[in-house]
Amino acid sequence: MAKQIEDQEEAPAPRQGALIIIGGHEQREGRMTILNEVARRVGDGPIVVTTVASHQPEGYFEQYDRAFRELGVKEVVEMDIRTRTETSSEEKLRLLDGATGVFFTGGDQLRITSQMGDTPVMSRILDIYRKGGVIAGTSAGASAMCETMLVKGTSRESYRIGDLYMAPGLGLIQDVIIDQHFAERGRMGRLLGAVAQNPRMLGIGIDEDTAISVENGEEFRVLGSGAVSVVDGEGVTYSNIAEEREDRALSIYDVKLHILSHGDSFDLLRRRPHLNDS
Amino acid sequence: MAKQIEDQEEAPAPRQGALIIIGGHEQREGRMTILNEVARRVGDGPIVVTTVASHQPEGYFEQYDRAFRELGVKEVVEMDIRTRTETSSEEKLRLLDGATGVFFTGGDQLRITSQMGDTPVMSRILDIYRKGGVIAGTSAGASAMCETMLVKGTSRESYRIGDLYMAPGLGLIQDVIIDQHFAERGRMGRLLGAVAQNPRMLGIGIDEDTAISVENGEEFRVLGSGAVSVVDGEGVTYSNIAEEREDRALSIYDVKLHILSHGDSFDLLRRRPHLNDS
Repeated sequence: MAKQIEDQEEAPAPRQGALIIIGGHEQREGRMTILNEVARRVGDGPIVVTTVASHQPEGYFEQYDRAFRELGVKEVVEMDIRTRTETSSEEKLRLLDGATGVFFTGGDQLRITSQMGDTPVMSRILDIYRKGGVIAGTSAGASAMCETMLVKGTSRESYRIGDLYMAPGLGLIQDVIIDQHFAERGRMGRLLGAVAQNPRMLGIGIDEDTAISVENGEEFRVLGSGAVSVVDGEGVTYSNIAEEREDRALSIYDVKLHILSHGDSFDLLRRRPHLNDS
Repeated sequence: MAKQIEDQEEAPAPRQGALIIIGGHEQREGRMTILNEVARRVGDGPIVVTTVASHQPEGYFEQYDRAFRELGVKEVVEMDIRTRTETSSEEKLRLLDGATGVFFTGGDQLRITSQMGDTPVMSRILDIYRKGGVIAGTSAGASAMCETMLVKGTSRESYRIGDLYMAPGLGLIQDVIIDQHFAERGRMGRLLGAVAQNPRMLGIGIDEDTAISVENGEEFRVLGSGAVSVVDGEGVTYSNIAEEREDRALSIYDVKLHILSHGDSFDLLRRRPHLNDS
């Protein structure tokens, strides 16, 4: 993993395309506000749906294939990756030829990074992004987009010091930690824990059927039926995270919290929300 | 209910005693950090445990009776109230004679206020508080302490406008909205909704096995194994709560959030946390 990070440092992550980062359980039939935005950005090119995150990918592709075709995408390509060696194969690389979008389904974010990190397939995906394509991911596919990603941590309880597992992510978006299924799984505690570790990171918690559409890594807009919670630790005056026993509950004072919903925008550079203009 | 509020306005709630407000599921055997604090404050007098909140109060009293006796309380009195008329009876009033503490068990907060609001029993409980006694409540018994109390609202999802039911509470503590089982039931969304309705109210979300001990209505200290989330809407720059459709997710910008744990204190007048000194 160290090598992957070094590579990213040498060649900073590209900022020409769009990222659509989804909190899981987006509508795959009916109105499909979020997938419709992915489809719109894909335009005339093919979209590659990769089920690398899943141990049991069967059925996932079919759902997305049906949804994207209904939304007017002309070509939907399946890229199932079971082993890391497959990510160097010509056969897999050819699947990405001409693609204007890549979609990461849900599962386990460590499967995404351990199978794809620093591989020819991942380089090709970064190229697609660099050339203005859209990279979308839902659930585990959302978490994996960060430099440092949340892997595991308890839900539905307040954060306890030491109760969080993080790992290097794909690095498509900088200076943020993404969490998903956010309100539904009561994950405020663990996101606060992640931000307490280093307030340089802005915490972004995305609800189910909700997404952020990130432009140039500089600004995002909220889509979908739920909310996006933004946890800004810049003004934090105290936390006990480096002081206390591992089973101790976290104290953290003076966190700034924004809740955004459909149509709201957020400036990632200035760390400020914009008024809802939907 | 209107009459109850008027009465409270005429005679502002007393501020001489202590309130111990518990997020539910406090330990009732073993270490019992929270019940031990209740017992300490009760001192030599009897404590009255009222199960008015519960439709099926059987067994509740026995748990608290055993716990408080183990913690050195000399007399533990059961006050079961099934109907509103009972709250005027001499028999029930006599149960409170000489009591230095009253404990409200969990159940339904509307049972507490509809059965006890503006009754002789409730006046007697206010007298106990006024004379320096301790009033403690867990779960529904915690919510009921506010002027305006949270009754119902969805957990484990972001707040939707219109998705919250509030009612006049007992008015033992002013200018705050209490929520309980907080992290465990993912209730940040509904507490933010309550604060958005009127940022004059400070939102206080209390985890299970966690309590705040309130002195003179001016300051509280955190006890127990979880966290207390304080949501301060004073600096809010925007919310859509009065603008949008009822099924719309809430937007709210610039909320201040503090997470406090065991030993931390909070100044309710200045709305500031104190450093953990445990």
